[in-house]
Amino acid sequence: MIIVLRPDATEEQIQHLVDIIGEKGLRAHISRGTERTIIGCIGDESKLQDIPFLAIPGVESAMPILEPYKLASKSFRPEKTRINMRGVEIGGDEVIVVAGPCSVEPNDTLFQTAHAVREAGAKILRGGAFKPRTSPYDFCGLGEEGLRMLDEARQATGLPIVTEVMDTREVELVYRYADAFQIGARNAQNFNLLREVGKYDKPVFLKRGMSMTIKELLMSAEYVISQGNPNVILVERGIRTFETATRNTLDIAAVAVLHEKTHLPVFVDPSHAAGDWRYVTKLACAAVACGADGLMVEVHPNPERAFSDGAQSLKFTKFAKLMEAIRPIAQAVGRWVAEGAKS
Amino acid sequence: MIIVLRPDATEEQIQHLVDIIGEKGLRAHISRGTERTIIGCIGDESKLQDIPFLAIPGVESAMPILEPYKLASKSFRPEKTRINMRGVEIGGDEVIVVAGPCSVEPNDTLFQTAHAVREAGAKILRGGAFKPRTSPYDFCGLGEEGLRMLDEARQATGLPIVTEVMDTREVELVYRYADAFQIGARNAQNFNLLREVGKYDKPVFLKRGMSMTIKELLMSAEYVISQGNPNVILVERGIRTFETATRNTLDIAAVAVLHEKTHLPVFVDPSHAAGDWRYVTKLACAAVACGADGLMVEVHPNPERAFSDGAQSLKFTKFAKLMEAIRPIAQAVGRWVAEGAKS
Amino acid sequence: MIIVLRPDATEEQIQHLVDIIGEKGLRAHISRGTERTIIGCIGDESKLQDIPFLAIPGVESAMPILEPYKLASKSFRPEKTRINMRGVEIGGDEVIVVAGPCSVEPNDTLFQTAHAVREAGAKILRGGAFKPRTSPYDFCGLGEEGLRMLDEARQATGLPIVTEVMDTREVELVYRYADAFQIGARNAQNFNLLREVGKYDKPVFLKRGMSMTIKELLMSAEYVISQGNPNVILVERGIRTFETATRNTLDIAAVAVLHEKTHLPVFVDPSHAAGDWRYVTKLACAAVACGADGLMVEVHPNPERAFSDGAQSLKFTKFAKLMEAIRPIAQAVGRWVAEGAKS
Amino acid sequence: MIIVLRPDATEEQIQHLVDIIGEKGLRAHISRGTERTIIGCIGDESKLQDIPFLAIPGVESAMPILEPYKLASKSFRPEKTRINMRGVEIGGDEVIVVAGPCSVEPNDTLFQTAHAVREAGAKILRGGAFKPRTSPYDFCGLGEEGLRMLDEARQATGLPIVTEVMDTREVELVYRYADAFQIGARNAQNFNLLREVGKYDKPVFLKRGMSMTIKELLMSAEYVISQGNPNVILVERGIRTFETATRNTLDIAAVAVLHEKTHLPVFVDPSHAAGDWRYVTKLACAAVACGADGLMVEVHPNPERAFSDGAQSLKFTKFAKLMEAIRPIAQAVGRWVAEGAKS
Repeated sequence: MIIVLRPDATEEQIQHLVDIIGEKGLRAHISRGTERTIIGCIGDESKLQDIPFLAIPGVESAMPILEPYKLASKSFRPEKTRINMRGVEIGGDEVIVVAGPCSVEPNDTLFQTAHAVREAGAKILRGGAFKPRTSPYDFCGLGEEGLRMLDEARQATGLPIVTEVMDTREVELVYRYADAFQIGARNAQNFNLLREVGKYDKPVFLKRGMSMTIKELLMSAEYVISQGNPNVILVERGIRTFETATRNTLDIAAVAVLHEKTHLPVFVDPSHAAGDWRYVTKLACAAVACGADGLMVEVHPNPERAFSDGAQSLKFTKFAKLMEAIRPIAQAVGRWVAEGAKS
Repeated sequence: MIIVLRPDATEEQIQHLVDIIGEKGLRAHISRGTERTIIGCIGDESKLQDIPFLAIPGVESAMPILEPYKLASKSFRPEKTRINMRGVEIGGDEVIVVAGPCSVEPNDTLFQTAHAVREAGAKILRGGAFKPRTSPYDFCGLGEEGLRMLDEARQATGLPIVTEVMDTREVELVYRYADAFQIGARNAQNFNLLREVGKYDKPVFLKRGMSMTIKELLMSAEYVISQGNPNVILVERGIRTFETATRNTLDIAAVAVLHEKTHLPVFVDPSHAAGDWRYVTKLACAAVACGADGLMVEVHPNPERAFSDGAQSLKFTKFAKLMEAIRPIAQAVGRWVAEGAKS
Repeated sequence: MIIVLRPDATEEQIQHLVDIIGEKGLRAHISRGTERTIIGCIGDESKLQDIPFLAIPGVESAMPILEPYKLASKSFRPEKTRINMRGVEIGGDEVIVVAGPCSVEPNDTLFQTAHAVREAGAKILRGGAFKPRTSPYDFCGLGEEGLRMLDEARQATGLPIVTEVMDTREVELVYRYADAFQIGARNAQNFNLLREVGKYDKPVFLKRGMSMTIKELLMSAEYVISQGNPNVILVERGIRTFETATRNTLDIAAVAVLHEKTHLPVFVDPSHAAGDWRYVTKLACAAVACGADGLMVEVHPNPERAFSDGAQSLKFTKFAKLMEAIRPIAQAVGRWVAEGAKS
Repeated sequence: MIIVLRPDATEEQIQHLVDIIGEKGLRAHISRGTERTIIGCIGDESKLQDIPFLAIPGVESAMPILEPYKLASKSFRPEKTRINMRGVEIGGDEVIVVAGPCSVEPNDTLFQTAHAVREAGAKILRGGAFKPRTSPYDFCGLGEEGLRMLDEARQATGLPIVTEVMDTREVELVYRYADAFQIGARNAQNFNLLREVGKYDKPVFLKRGMSMTIKELLMSAEYVISQGNPNVILVERGIRTFETATRNTLDIAAVAVLHEKTHLPVFVDPSHAAGDWRYVTKLACAAVACGADGLMVEVHPNPERAFSDGAQSLKFTKFAKLMEAIRPIAQAVGRWVAEGAKS
């Protein structure tokens, strides 16, 4: 922590700061410049993070030196985390594609889609049984019935399944059915929910909130890891900006920045970023070229009849083309994408 | 709903759209312009909101005509909602000030503050027993012990209390102690939590999420109201933008826009907006001048020792000055602020 | 400047940095912490601002201590700047209202409006002869003919005039007619234009760019002042955010922050911020309550026939009400607004 | 244009709107729905774009149907524009790389860099003789001397040159030396400058402004084209958002959206987007994968001594690696990148 003093800071104020820093077990290193005096704090900076330095007389600003997350940081664990999800290795050289419909619907959409995406090369099936919807009047998922259908689709195709959990009360239920939890963008700072999934041993796909900085995303991952569950997969899915031509703005650089700062695998969700099926494949290509460890893609047999997110869902043929498009790009960056499993 | 067709849309595509609209019980009104054909949908637009028109061939864009919320809208209820919170009327001509420490701390901060803010004219006491913190290593509140202390402070001062609820599992507990729920910015789209507080009969202070549009804020209010609880108070507390000189950017115009669109009371939280005590009073003045029905202000006897949000907390004397500053402004806009209660 | 080193920085890298800092005439003060070494630079920090520290091996981050502007800062000039614009004092206790039509039109709009706003209490007349328009097909102003009409309106009413200059080639021409220059939001970082108006002795109303930080706004003011013209009035007119309910998001806190950081007068333009006449008066009230030194308001006798910005223009009666609304608020904050001049 | 009326709109108000629309030569098509009446305007919508519908009584909202740009749109010209820049074809299957130092410096940086980037496969040389700098105290370019050096570097290497023009007064001068104009992000809505370069016959690299929507970028292109110069290359260089981990947020989807909406070539500038050399190559890979027609990259022999933008400049070896990295990606998307020219 570095504390910059106001030009009119008094010696008493400086001493008061030195005392506060000392109370926390750190040592103050005072450096008197020509225009400002600054105080460097020597010791364990995390002990200072609760102190509201701006509230202390004489202080102009206070700048932390270290990142506020630890377990999620590359300095804590330099090698990349590899996560085993029911036999699928996430975080290795293979680019893993998660695909499926937005919602599990009360029809055979999920089964059709599960087979189709498996044949195209997807390794994990997604589908929402609990759906966060902006409107209270929209379809909000089938609940446990949806989880049961996911289980059946898994049995039919062998694909492990990931599904969203929205409520601390449902974590245990979702755990019983799913192979991984998904935390949605709107719950990315639902700290109790993060703590709760941190108590289980299944992987967590953590989506970045719409207005969450990269640092905050890593703090949310830290919540999960600090409870004992190190298997967090970060998912960039677009942030909210002034641009309305796409549903969100895919922060493609986040992939590169995250790989610099954390050992956790980083996925990209081009469907929610675009909000329009026409742009999904191009964003998927960009993500793989930028080093993403995987993709989450929404697929539906008949998007115009989808219960949710139809506008951004790919038909089976379009999804197959996406898979073909990313294969040579993965290869160009020293990675690979699985071939489809012929049924 | 108005649907704009692509210039190359075929008659088959148009007929397909007419059929889909008809299935939902609406009538399609086709208007062939010189450059585009458009379809107006006559009937209950809410029946169409699930249809992903962008996924339907021939469609260029689809524009809803009505706002997606109903119960929260002024057309549903033209007169302003007045909410009685243990004898305090919210939404009337009096500008109501909610004040208190950010967290309930394990010391006498809450009691001192409760007395001080009451003497300065605050009508409601705030204080967090459950605290959402970006870092898992920060103080996260005293839980039920904090609720008990709030109860004691209420008994000592007569001020009704509002406190945050973060978890669906804790709604019942918080209900037992508090006079109103607070939903924090990070949970403003935690839809299950919104539904849960909607089942109770106490007022809900609903903070706007950091990247939430005004429309989405009203949709979250709709969640609460649609469960049976009409007593929602909307709280503008700053949105996230590129500007870093303040913690958030207070969207002061939201007060005016919300008063145009909804009958619900609108409060402003200048403390979280500013993130710096030096700007809190000026933002409070702006809020009252703009027509806010109330303020939520963080106050602490010794901000540099606050367990959370010290940088933006006002000392007692500063808070008393804020109250003095807003009184003539309230009067200038035809409102009033209570005088302090001498102890 | 404080330089934070990477954990793996070598002694050679540290020495290299010390040398670079020394070359610029500053002294390096090395502080070795438990997790990071930091270097404080003692001396004239402005000499370092060209150095790309991130490009130097071993550097993790570099944090300037001082604001990058000088002449615009309060530490350079603690007392508030008062600017005399043809007899109108800007920056004193009087809240000055600038009003007029968006464009000078080829009809008597300007004259009618000039009289009306003067009668309501406005002290300065605005009107655009050169108009920046997003579309090349829109009305772009009358040019010198518009300037001549402004001159006539000034003679008829006695109101000094401010008008926008968009092109370095037109500065001299605008100078001949206007009492003050206006630099529009889209030219707020047109550095050559800023330099050019800095060479003249008339006041400059500098609008904040849509995505400009407060710091950058002050740097643009510095451009003008550094050329010799200290008479800069900063104008907050809303920034671009994700919210679309208003044309821009009025950053009302910018008024408070700017008054903390600079001696220059700060105005607010509620018309461009709102983009909708219904919200203009409320934003004007908020601005005065927050301490704005003046307002810029668009007024038109018949907004639906306005050549530009009709949606946000106030009719004469509405403008008169705005003036009445802000008077008691100005008084509440220890300021005043002129009474209208009866004709 | 579709006009949605307020629920309380009167027949007189509707007739008034019909008259206004008729005055402009369009026909009003009235559609009375169950909750709102809407008016569709049949005819040339561009004639209505000046009308401030929101200022007209009875109007709730007005929605244009057509994009406001014409010459830049794909419907005006379905096939992609190919631009010949001194023998280099832009907009074809070859991905064109523009590279060079940020500034032309008073030393041999430009010459060294020109040779190095040519050897690595760049086809166009960039370098700034006029530099927009946030601070008036920073290096602002060598002016005509810089242009002369660019000319010499062109002669030495055969690479065509592009350089920024910032001032309407300098367009003619820059035209004499450069093979293409660059319009910087801060001048992307400097409409007079856009008009001025539109009068010349050399290509224009038009950078997207930091807070400019894709639609506005196309409107700025329209300014240039409408003056007679169709040779506009759009450059996505990152937009301003709340995220500070990178200098700007690269809106990679803009490449896909622009290719859907316009026939103009689309380049990406990964250097300004990232602001940090560590991320430049990954963003370049993403851009090529997403279909960018070219890249603009900052290269410097010794970034820590660069006069500007050192932090984001690549050394020669790093740039050569970038070129190697994008070649297989270009191939994966059916494009190609030139091999380096051995000297």
